[in-house]
Amino acid sequence: MEAARAAEEAGRHIVHMEVGQPSSGAPAHARNVLAETMKTDPLGYTMSLGLPELRARIARHYGEWYDVDLDPARVVVTPGSSGGFVLAFTALFDAGDNVVVGRPGYPSYRQIMKALDIRPLEIPASEKNGYLLAPEDLEGVEFQGLMMASPANPTGTMLNSEGLGKMIGLCQERDAAFLSDEIYHGIEHERRSVSALEISDDVCVINSFSKYYCMTGWRVGWLVVPEPQLRQVERLAQNLFICPPHAAQVAALAAMDATEELEENRKVYARNRQLMLEGLPKAGFDRIAPPDGAFYVYADVSHLTHDSRAFAAEILDKAGVAVTPGFDFDPERGGGTLRFSYAQGTAEIEEGLDRLRRFMETRG
Amino acid sequence: MEAARAAEEAGRHIVHMEVGQPSSGAPAHARNVLAETMKTDPLGYTMSLGLPELRARIARHYGEWYDVDLDPARVVVTPGSSGGFVLAFTALFDAGDNVVVGRPGYPSYRQIMKALDIRPLEIPASEKNGYLLAPEDLEGVEFQGLMMASPANPTGTMLNSEGLGKMIGLCQERDAAFLSDEIYHGIEHERRSVSALEISDDVCVINSFSKYYCMTGWRVGWLVVPEPQLRQVERLAQNLFICPPHAAQVAALAAMDATEELEENRKVYARNRQLMLEGLPKAGFDRIAPPDGAFYVYADVSHLTHDSRAFAAEILDKAGVAVTPGFDFDPERGGGTLRFSYAQGTAEIEEGLDRLRRFMETRG
Repeated sequence: MEAARAAEEAGRHIVHMEVGQPSSGAPAHARNVLAETMKTDPLGYTMSLGLPELRARIARHYGEWYDVDLDPARVVVTPGSSGGFVLAFTALFDAGDNVVVGRPGYPSYRQIMKALDIRPLEIPASEKNGYLLAPEDLEGVEFQGLMMASPANPTGTMLNSEGLGKMIGLCQERDAAFLSDEIYHGIEHERRSVSALEISDDVCVINSFSKYYCMTGWRVGWLVVPEPQLRQVERLAQNLFICPPHAAQVAALAAMDATEELEENRKVYARNRQLMLEGLPKAGFDRIAPPDGAFYVYADVSHLTHDSRAFAAEILDKAGVAVTPGFDFDPERGGGTLRFSYAQGTAEIEEGLDRLRRFMETRG
Repeated sequence: MEAARAAEEAGRHIVHMEVGQPSSGAPAHARNVLAETMKTDPLGYTMSLGLPELRARIARHYGEWYDVDLDPARVVVTPGSSGGFVLAFTALFDAGDNVVVGRPGYPSYRQIMKALDIRPLEIPASEKNGYLLAPEDLEGVEFQGLMMASPANPTGTMLNSEGLGKMIGLCQERDAAFLSDEIYHGIEHERRSVSALEISDDVCVINSFSKYYCMTGWRVGWLVVPEPQLRQVERLAQNLFICPPHAAQVAALAAMDATEELEENRKVYARNRQLMLEGLPKAGFDRIAPPDGAFYVYADVSHLTHDSRAFAAEILDKAGVAVTPGFDFDPERGGGTLRFSYAQGTAEIEEGLDRLRRFMETRG
């Protein structure tokens, strides 16, 4: 990202296939409602668990999307999913506990855990399972918690209901906490994402308004926590954050009713994904995990390089396309992988694929 | 606060002398600028240290208010001062370190430290020193850090330059970190607040847009950290928060130029303070620490009660005035103290003082 910025400052046009955020902002309706609210509401502290009407709306969302009947009392509005991770990890684990995360995965999981003195146990997920952890990966492993994301970052791969159920069951057998990062829910292309709450009440779900609702910079997300953890989460939220940002909560509440605009965005991702699935193999990137959701394609490029950082730098330099080296998601095997994001506009994606194809042709 | 809310829901009018936030919202100019910006800017993630123009504006503020020449690179925009505490504690201390805080004090200091496995060492500050820690309080105490606030919460008392210098010097002699919570700067009445940065570069300053800038619910604040800690703070900020809320940063930047409106607010506090200094003794609360700044008066009521919680409940019930029991700030001696806030409008303060006087007359 730094190198891409430097190149742009030097006057070059860069296609951004490295970014993890939509190019569009919060829905117009969300911005309008906030602009109106700001005129009269001083937007002081909210309750530490969030605005009651937003918590109720999120609970209703589980009925609408997943046919799950959820008590609003179990919904905790957080300062982004980042705030949700901090709260969930602090509430569920003690210092020194082992929490399993799959490799490749979102790098901040392990960094947040380390900052909180929790031990991230990174286990390689196999390519044949779409880089998602499966029961056999956890044989003989001792752990107090397991965190999974579906759709996953960096791969966009998804667990089906059976796969998710097995992992939750395995945690329950071992008396370990199951944490489900559902931040990419709503951005899926072939089949709908399954929420861990469809399977069990004894799970902790982390979600956010950043991706489907296009509100990355607003820093608002939510947790659904098991009833016994609620009091502790509330106490922690009060002390660590006081409350989530009030303006962002007002905008988020309105965003949940901006279905038309959000579904238009989803269609853009779907179109972009189709372009990627055609264009990347044509350019020579044909070893890719099936990107069921999110806006990423994770490509095995180990036949081309073992230093994904140098390769990404070369692609930026010669093709003018920014991509993310796999090292960021998998310090072990990531030397042979790249993540391509298709969160930007379709014209950008077309231009980027064209540049990649020409670059690879020249490279030979 | 819960009890006050319940009383209001039952239809009673309650005067809020318990709240720690201004009744006015962000300055009009800040809201206008944000409303305009939202129309075109997608407000995505910012850099994790904050918008460069906001960091530069905060650095300039130190020149304007304190005649301190500050490098914008040392300014870190945070999700409220809460986020600043989390970052500062995590960056400066290891698990098990002792960090001194004075009693009475802001209760979240110790709660945040405990959540991060840092040991808060609460030391009673003496009434004759305005409930502010002095060098003699630290004799024979082993510690890795010292956190002080001036103006202080719950007392509104302030350290002068000499007093602050002595505490910073004492930390430097002992190779301990000095953290200065300057969240109430700008709200002072007789003399200006002194920033720790006027005395030394080797301090960590925590501040916020919540109080002087009336932006509590926006969750935006800042840290000034010593140069050697910058990289670590940046890494932590990236992982724990990604970035501070973008919309709040846009509003905060504009708020810094809304001097006229903010100075009007300060005049309201000054008027309210005068009313409190006259009205509280008349009502029988005459043992008060000199409230140099902030919008609090801390009263010794040990001649009236040893159970400040029951007394606060009685005042709420019989007088319809919500106040904060000292137990919240000082679990040891707080049974004999109350905090009165004058952050609300002047009419409310007048009504509250009137109710308190009548209540105390009846009580006898």
